Amino acid sequence: MVIPDNSSIVIFGASGDLTYRKLIPALYHLYASNQLPESFAILGVSRTEYSDESYREKLKRSMQELEKTEPKTLEKFCEHIHYQPLNTSEEQEYAKLKDRLETLSEHYKFEQINTLFYLATPPSLYGVIPGCLAAHKLNDESTGWKRIIVEKPFGYDLESAQSLDIEIHRHFSESQIYRIDHYLGKETVQNLLVLRFANGMFEPLWNRNFIDYVEITGSEFLGVEGRGGYYDNSGAVRDMFQNHLLQVLAMVTMEPPSEIDSNSIRNEVNKVLQSVQPLSEQDLRTNLVLGQYTESNVRGQFLKGYRDEDGVAEDSRTETYMALKMFINNWRWNGVPFYVRSGKRLPTRVTEVAIHFKRTPHPAFDKTAPENKLIIRIQPDEGILMNFGLKEPGAGFKAKEVGMDFHYASLEETKMLTAYERLLLDSLNGDATLFARTDAVEACWKFVQPILDFKQDPQALYGYASGTWGPKEADDLLKRDGRDWRFPCKNLTNTDYCEL
Amino acid sequence: MVIPDNSSIVIFGASGDLTYRKLIPALYHLYASNQLPESFAILGVSRTEYSDESYREKLKRSMQELEKTEPKTLEKFCEHIHYQPLNTSEEQEYAKLKDRLETLSEHYKFEQINTLFYLATPPSLYGVIPGCLAAHKLNDESTGWKRIIVEKPFGYDLESAQSLDIEIHRHFSESQIYRIDHYLGKETVQNLLVLRFANGMFEPLWNRNFIDYVEITGSEFLGVEGRGGYYDNSGAVRDMFQNHLLQVLAMVTMEPPSEIDSNSIRNEVNKVLQSVQPLSEQDLRTNLVLGQYTESNVRGQFLKGYRDEDGVAEDSRTETYMALKMFINNWRWNGVPFYVRSGKRLPTRVTEVAIHFKRTPHPAFDKTAPENKLIIRIQPDEGILMNFGLKEPGAGFKAKEVGMDFHYASLEETKMLTAYERLLLDSLNGDATLFARTDAVEACWKFVQPILDFKQDPQALYGYASGTWGPKEADDLLKRDGRDWRFPCKNLTNTDYCEL
Repeated sequence: MVIPDNSSIVIFGASGDLTYRKLIPALYHLYASNQLPESFAILGVSRTEYSDESYREKLKRSMQELEKTEPKTLEKFCEHIHYQPLNTSEEQEYAKLKDRLETLSEHYKFEQINTLFYLATPPSLYGVIPGCLAAHKLNDESTGWKRIIVEKPFGYDLESAQSLDIEIHRHFSESQIYRIDHYLGKETVQNLLVLRFANGMFEPLWNRNFIDYVEITGSEFLGVEGRGGYYDNSGAVRDMFQNHLLQVLAMVTMEPPSEIDSNSIRNEVNKVLQSVQPLSEQDLRTNLVLGQYTESNVRGQFLKGYRDEDGVAEDSRTETYMALKMFINNWRWNGVPFYVRSGKRLPTRVTEVAIHFKRTPHPAFDKTAPENKLIIRIQPDEGILMNFGLKEPGAGFKAKEVGMDFHYASLEETKMLTAYERLLLDSLNGDATLFARTDAVEACWKFVQPILDFKQDPQALYGYASGTWGPKEADDLLKRDGRDWRFPCKNLTNTDYCEL
Repeated sequence: MVIPDNSSIVIFGASGDLTYRKLIPALYHLYASNQLPESFAILGVSRTEYSDESYREKLKRSMQELEKTEPKTLEKFCEHIHYQPLNTSEEQEYAKLKDRLETLSEHYKFEQINTLFYLATPPSLYGVIPGCLAAHKLNDESTGWKRIIVEKPFGYDLESAQSLDIEIHRHFSESQIYRIDHYLGKETVQNLLVLRFANGMFEPLWNRNFIDYVEITGSEFLGVEGRGGYYDNSGAVRDMFQNHLLQVLAMVTMEPPSEIDSNSIRNEVNKVLQSVQPLSEQDLRTNLVLGQYTESNVRGQFLKGYRDEDGVAEDSRTETYMALKMFINNWRWNGVPFYVRSGKRLPTRVTEVAIHFKRTPHPAFDKTAPENKLIIRIQPDEGILMNFGLKEPGAGFKAKEVGMDFHYASLEETKMLTAYERLLLDSLNGDATLFARTDAVEACWKFVQPILDFKQDPQALYGYASGTWGPKEADDLLKRDGRDWRFPCKNLTNTDYCEL
């Protein structure tokens, strides 16, 4: 276990939801398990007026509501919390921040002014804050490292992502920038690398010779849940596909990195994203399905249609579902279709990768033997499932589908870090492996931009009843190839995953 | 489900142990599950004088002692049982058998005189009975099929096996001869073919490029159990290795047969057995370990040494354990060591094949990542286990060994046939797939003969305490290659497999 350097963690957007629900709990857990630096300060920053004391009280109450905490540990953890009110768009105000950081540094007897700036703010401030910090030399690493964490979404389309990138790079170097994608903080996503490269038995099969096709599913049962205003400007393509699912795709398909370190891994992620076959006009018409959920009764509960959600335009054409058949043009994957789908108000919450191996070529079995599948479950119930054929007991040699599975939950002794815990810890340790690099972000946007342009086409949106697996047209997309989407609930060990 | 032709089943050695303990129970179960022909006769034959009635009573009592039977079904089953006393070495006596079969045929209104002769007799009669049958045209298929089942051991060494073969073939064609090996009747042995050839994901790995080495273990906790007289003339090489384990090896290593039928499969079995690298003088000295169990206290129970067993010579040099490192000289397996071991009075009863895949070649993992293994458990608790590495939760990318398993017992709906049920049914149906063909038997003896010759060498036998995994020299055999025998108990689901 590596313990990070003594440092200050500055959270912009300190009175926001993300801070209360994710960041502070993550820091508390890291503290409780002795993974934070020996000496550290957490400095909340936002416009709201709080004193250190009143901010601490607010966080303490919110923590106690969220989960069971150990009172003494929580008390001691809160002693490290401070607050600085600040108008974050006013450059001159940052003098106060600088002073405060110096005072804290003296108080905690830091040898260096190491500082992590976490931008838990609306994206409109991602360009502003770095400039203000730089104006007061808060980007200067001569007094200790300075790192900046940017929350997603990183840009709204290719152009805005590129200009945001130029903006931040004006004041911070790439090695100082940590673009967070909480998907990459998940054990099972990282596990893709270990599964593939630490084993001798999977990688030989991991290519066009043996893999028939790959499905990637990111489904949610929830709808927009009060975030209609934000979502209506975003949609499934931006909200899930562009960042999360393309990152998962990259982990599944990348070449072995020369080493398991930040640069080598991110080089390969970028390389494979650059090899994704760009979508032609024809691809967009035939291989893409966009959908929007409509009202429905699901297990006795009435679920609103998307257009009736608060904050959503009555005639909104924002997609809450997308399915895409895509290809990767390289030696390993040429010709292997990747079917990627994501949506809200689907029957269950599940993220998984299903590797479908080619059928046995043996004529005695090729018609009847079950398909071979490796399913990598990212959430919930993280684990691995494998389906293949064994002999059906009795006379003859008929193959019967059987399954083996491994569930991370069975490793009782080890506590898994949540995505935010893991990513905060990594950024404090200067390990950028699990953060998106600028070239990869750009490659994703480049691939996605034609979809964003195409979305405007008024013919391109299909309705689907809430609680179903998306529009019929998405089924047709696979049926054309003689395939069906995998029904992902089958092998889930817990049956209460439907959040209804 | 194919129902066999109406037929008579003639059991030579009808008053012997095998008949009571295995054959009659197997036939009863086939009857109870409606898998026997509509009309059939079972005719017991031996020197002992019984009437039909007294023989039936004897079998009925023995069945009731052995297991829970359904009284009405047992009663109806026993109506099919008949008895014919006969001096089996006297040719002229077989006229009685012929008459009896004709009478039964009339009684049961058989359209054809289909007859299965089961030789559950001492091997010394395997040459005699076929000749006597032939003298009375009981090998003549013009009146219906005539098949002969020969129990193991088929021969005592290469020479005796060859002359026995000539003897039987004088009167019966190869297609009439069923050499039984109850190992081949086990679901998991047959499953080797399905596992390998019905799946797209295993066969690509099944060769020298990806497999590091293979272990085959056939261990018994029991000693000679009153069969000392027989065993002392046999030994582990003849009793287990020559037939059972070499057959298992063939199933693991054979090329895909062109079809899943008797001839195609047996062609491939024979082919791979012919490719086994013959043992040189040097191999015998360095790659073979023979052992004999000595007395020991195991979990509070005193276990006799082999030489103190009834029927065993005081200075016996018969091996109760053997371990051999061997190779297969063909395109698929060249250079891959096969470590095969078998013994009595080992810690547990288990038969399994362990496929050890090559380690990942990736430098980030090759030193620390766990080995990849596929274990095919033949008995007890038939199933498949797979060991590989997944990410250890927490920071970094360390691989941790995890396992997945499939147990046949989990297929509740299907009742597995016992080996004898399966093999009797197959022979009644004329399916010789799971019976050893003459060329394969000869190939096994050819390979084994140098070991039999070498056994005489008085330096070549090592003692091992009962209840241990064989002599230290067997461990050294693998240690020289930087390996260890797998400890097979680890993943057994039932822990009461030790028959102590």
